[in-house]
Amino acid sequence: MSDCIFCKIVAGEIPASKVYEDDEVFAFHDIRPVAPVHFLLIPKRHVESLAHCGPDDEALLGRMLTLAPQLAREQGLAEGFKTGINTGRGGGQEVFHLHIHVFGHKH
Amino acid sequence: MSDCIFCKIVAGEIPASKVYEDDEVFAFHDIRPVAPVHFLLIPKRHVESLAHCGPDDEALLGRMLTLAPQLAREQGLAEGFKTGINTGRGGGQEVFHLHIHVFGHKH
Repeated sequence: MSDCIFCKIVAGEIPASKVYEDDEVFAFHDIRPVAPVHFLLIPKRHVESLAHCGPDDEALLGRMLTLAPQLAREQGLAEGFKTGINTGRGGGQEVFHLHIHVFGHKH
Repeated sequence: MSDCIFCKIVAGEIPASKVYEDDEVFAFHDIRPVAPVHFLLIPKRHVESLAHCGPDDEALLGRMLTLAPQLAREQGLAEGFKTGINTGRGGGQEVFHLHIHVFGHKH
């Protein structure tokens, strides 16, 4: 998606504070954090929202969710953290490239 | 887990307002809703938290996440919804059986 800000971050065309990267997944700090630690976990390929995911996306979604605790620990969230996905305008989604918010306070 | 309230709901030992059920997953309305529609999506087998999930749980987690939009639509959340998981006491987890909150406003 040529006009997607998150695709541009994945491509390195827009700078981001990278937390993690592998072949399928990219993670970076949210530029408007709601907590002392707040990063986003996104698929590298463009997926508009959770509502656009089907059976073919289950493996990727499962991998992203199990990555979240590992990355949260690495970011200092040893005592716990929250994950959230906003889906659709009615759900508060602002960037239409699927992203999992991971955030929390260091204890 | 004999003392887990969500295991008891799955077993039918504690009543709940069921939203969905299949072999692996159970969904029911939250008794303390934070929005007009608010239900929980849980694995039937006891998994303590997202931090206790490993590679063997990825398929289940992926299935649960892709089920969320379908159930949200069926519950009237056509314009969007939020999903959230609280992990660990520091992340606000209160019941230590993994659950995905799905909630939103009807538009």
